[in-house]
Amino acid sequence: MTPAERRSIIESVSVTPILIEDGPLLNMQGVHQPYTPRSIIEVVTVDGTTGLGETYGDSAVLAVIEQFATHLPGRSVLTPNDLWALAAEVLRPDTVPAKLVENAPGHNIFGDNSMLKLHSTVVSAFEVAFLDASGHLLGVPVHALLGGKVRDRIDFAAYLFYRWDAHPQPDAPVDEWGAALDPEGIVAQAARMIELHGFRSLKLKGGVFPPDEEIAAVTALHEAFPELPLRFDPNGAWSVETSIRVARELEGMIEYLEDPCLGRAEMAEVHAATGMPLATNMCVTDFGEFPEAVALDSIQVLLTDHHYWGGLRATQQLAAVCNTFGRSLSMHSNSHLGISLAAMVQAAACAEGDFHACDTHRPWQTEDVITRPHRIVDGAIEVSDAPGLGVELDRAELARLHERWKRSDVRDRDDVAAMQVKDPTFVKPAVPHW
Amino acid sequence: MTPAERRSIIESVSVTPILIEDGPLLNMQGVHQPYTPRSIIEVVTVDGTTGLGETYGDSAVLAVIEQFATHLPGRSVLTPNDLWALAAEVLRPDTVPAKLVENAPGHNIFGDNSMLKLHSTVVSAFEVAFLDASGHLLGVPVHALLGGKVRDRIDFAAYLFYRWDAHPQPDAPVDEWGAALDPEGIVAQAARMIELHGFRSLKLKGGVFPPDEEIAAVTALHEAFPELPLRFDPNGAWSVETSIRVARELEGMIEYLEDPCLGRAEMAEVHAATGMPLATNMCVTDFGEFPEAVALDSIQVLLTDHHYWGGLRATQQLAAVCNTFGRSLSMHSNSHLGISLAAMVQAAACAEGDFHACDTHRPWQTEDVITRPHRIVDGAIEVSDAPGLGVELDRAELARLHERWKRSDVRDRDDVAAMQVKDPTFVKPAVPHW
Repeated sequence: MTPAERRSIIESVSVTPILIEDGPLLNMQGVHQPYTPRSIIEVVTVDGTTGLGETYGDSAVLAVIEQFATHLPGRSVLTPNDLWALAAEVLRPDTVPAKLVENAPGHNIFGDNSMLKLHSTVVSAFEVAFLDASGHLLGVPVHALLGGKVRDRIDFAAYLFYRWDAHPQPDAPVDEWGAALDPEGIVAQAARMIELHGFRSLKLKGGVFPPDEEIAAVTALHEAFPELPLRFDPNGAWSVETSIRVARELEGMIEYLEDPCLGRAEMAEVHAATGMPLATNMCVTDFGEFPEAVALDSIQVLLTDHHYWGGLRATQQLAAVCNTFGRSLSMHSNSHLGISLAAMVQAAACAEGDFHACDTHRPWQTEDVITRPHRIVDGAIEVSDAPGLGVELDRAELARLHERWKRSDVRDRDDVAAMQVKDPTFVKPAVPHW
Repeated sequence: MTPAERRSIIESVSVTPILIEDGPLLNMQGVHQPYTPRSIIEVVTVDGTTGLGETYGDSAVLAVIEQFATHLPGRSVLTPNDLWALAAEVLRPDTVPAKLVENAPGHNIFGDNSMLKLHSTVVSAFEVAFLDASGHLLGVPVHALLGGKVRDRIDFAAYLFYRWDAHPQPDAPVDEWGAALDPEGIVAQAARMIELHGFRSLKLKGGVFPPDEEIAAVTALHEAFPELPLRFDPNGAWSVETSIRVARELEGMIEYLEDPCLGRAEMAEVHAATGMPLATNMCVTDFGEFPEAVALDSIQVLLTDHHYWGGLRATQQLAAVCNTFGRSLSMHSNSHLGISLAAMVQAAACAEGDFHACDTHRPWQTEDVITRPHRIVDGAIEVSDAPGLGVELDRAELARLHERWKRSDVRDRDDVAAMQVKDPTFVKPAVPHW
C-alpha cells in the first residue's frame, strides 16, 4: 500500500437527513411540498480528509444508504469501483424495501424501479463523496480523476414551472416568484429567470393543464424568446395520439419534446409519426432499458442523472453508450443543493458527447449547505478547478436543516399529498391523462 | 493550479522505435517476420516524473505519433481526455497518411481503418503514458486512476500458432519451440505452454491450412485438454458456408469461434445458422461499427484492445457498451512487450463485465524493455498495485533494440513479404480463401 493509499482509508461515514425549502411548483402528479428531504453524506479518512455527497432523502432510500454506510470504514476512497461489488453483496431482494425495486401500479414520475437502479443510486451517493475525498487527498479536481474536463462551462436551461404564488400551508416558506398559471405568467417567469441568471435555453415543465393551454404557453415562450432553444416536458401525461398532435403543433418551436407519453414503444410511435426528437428521463433510466430504446428508436436525447445512473464515472460510460448509438445528451434534475450541483457540473464537464443545456432546480432553491453557493452567469456554471468538488460544507446550515428534519414529520417527497392540502378531492391522475 | 497539477506539466516526450525478435508464427496472410517494430513512449514532466507507453512501430503510425508528440509539452499528464480534442485538431485527412484512414482493397487482418480508429490509436499511446506518469505523481496504481480494479488477477489464454521450426533468413533469431504444422505439433505446443505458464484456456490461430486440417487440430486439442475452454481464430479466412460447416463440426468443443468470415452481415448469418457464439477483433474495431453489429447480432464476444480502442478509459467505456448490449469480452493481442502487457492487465482489471481469458503473445517474445518482465503463473498475471503501471524501463535494452532498428531496414510489419522469403510465389490470399 502506497502512502496515498494509507491516507485514503475511511475512518467514518455520516449520513445526515435534512429538509430544504421548496416552492409550490406544479407537475402532473401534484405540487412540490413546502419542504423536501435530501441526504448529505460525509466520508472521513484516517488522515482527516473529508468527501461530500448529496442524494435523495426519502425514508426508504435513507434507510438503505445509512445501512450501506456501515460497510465503508476500512475501505479506500480511491477505489469507488469497489462499491458495485459491495452493493451486489449487501443490497439484495431480501435486504431492501420492496418498494425500491418493484413498481407500484400506474404512473411513476421517476421511471421504473429495478435492483440495478437501486444499486446505481446507492453507489452514486458514495462514489461522489469518494471522488471528492480523493481529489482533496491527491490535490486535484474531481474532473482530473475522471481523465480531465472536456468543457470549461456547463450550460443550464431556465427550468420553468407552473406554480402557485404560495403554498397553502400557513407556516410554509414564501418566495418572491409569484404565480405562473397561464402563458403570460410563464413568459414573465422566463424573463425574470433570464434576467437573474442569463439563461440561453428554456425548459417548461408541463403535464399540469390540458395540452392546448400548455401549447399556448410554449407558443408564447417561443414568440417572446425566438432565439432560445426551448423544450417541453409533460412527464408522460399524454396518450400517443395527443403526443403526436402536440408534436405536430409545436414543430419548429421546440428543439425536442421530453417524455410526452409513457413507454418505449409508445415513444417510438410518436417519433416515427412526427420526426420530433424525443428526450427521456422516464423510459430509459438504467442501462438495462437502453437496448430496447435503441431497437425501437424510442429516444433521441438521453437525460443523464448521476444520482440514479451510478455516479460520475457511470455518467461518462452512459455518454459513451449514447455517443455510440447516436443519441445526444442533457441532464435531469430534482430539487437539490450545491453538493449535487457541484457533482452535476463535474459529471457534465467530463462526459464526451453532444450535450444540450442541463436541467437544474437551483434557481428555485433558497437554501444551501455549502459556504459559497454556485452562481449561474450567462446561463452557465464554470467548472471548478479546485481540489475535489470544490465546495465546502456549511456546518451551521447543515445543522439547521437537520434540526428542521428532526422537528418535522415530513419524511418523503409526496407531491400528491401536497396537492391534497389545497384540494382534498385530488387523486393522482391515471395516465394517459389527456 | 494545484501543486500536483504544476508538477504534472509535460516537459518532454520521446518516441523510440525498436525492433523486437519474433517467432515464425503463421497466419492467413503469411508469417511473422524475424523482427517486428514497436514504439516506446516516454513522457517526462517538469518534476522529472516519467510515464511509459508502448504501441505499434510501423512507419506510418510512427510518423504520426512522433508528430503528435511535439504538441504535448506544456500539457498536463493528469488530463488525458484532452488528447481527443488535440487529435481532432491535428490529425485530419490532409495531415495523416491516407493508408492509415482508407482501406486497401481485400483482406485487412486488423479490421477496417477509419479516422476514429487512428485518433483512438494515437490517443491510446499517450493516454497510457499519461496514466503511468499520473500514478507515479500521485502515488497510486493506474487502476486507482480508473476508479479501482474489479479483479486481482487477469487470466490469459495459451495463444497457439502453427509455426515453422525457424525463420528462413540465415541471420534470424532462433527459439526452442520447434515446428507445429499438424495436430500433434499443436497439442505438443499447448502442453509445453501449459507446463511453462499454467494456462487454463487455449486459443488456436487458424486460417493457415484447409479447414479440415485445422478442425483436426482443434479436435485433438479438445481431446487432449477436455477441461480447458478452447477457441479458434481463422482471421476471416472462410466463406459463410465454410464457417457454418466448421461451426457445426466444432459444436461442443469450443467456447466460441473468432472471426470465421469477414463482414458483420456474414458473421450474423453464421451465428443465426449455428447458434455458435462469435468473437471479433476484425468486424467491430471502433465504436462506429458497434450499432450495426448489435442490430444484426453479428457478435457475442468483443475483443477489446486498448491500443486501437482509445486507451484504458475507453476500454472501460467499451466494456460498458458491451455490458449494456449483453456482449461478453475478451482481449486481443499483437506481438508486444511488457509496457503494453502492464497496460493490458490494468485495462482488464478495471473493465466491468463478463471477461473470457485474454490473449497475449507474451510467451512468444524473447525480449523485453522492462526490468522485471511479467510472469504468467497458473495462466494469469497478478494486477500490479505499485504506482503507475508498476513497470520500470530497462534503458540498456531499449537502447539495444533501438540500435537494431537503426541498423535494419525493417520498418513495417509485413507477413506477406516474410512468407515470400520462403516461397517467392506466395501471394496474399483473397478472401474467402476456403
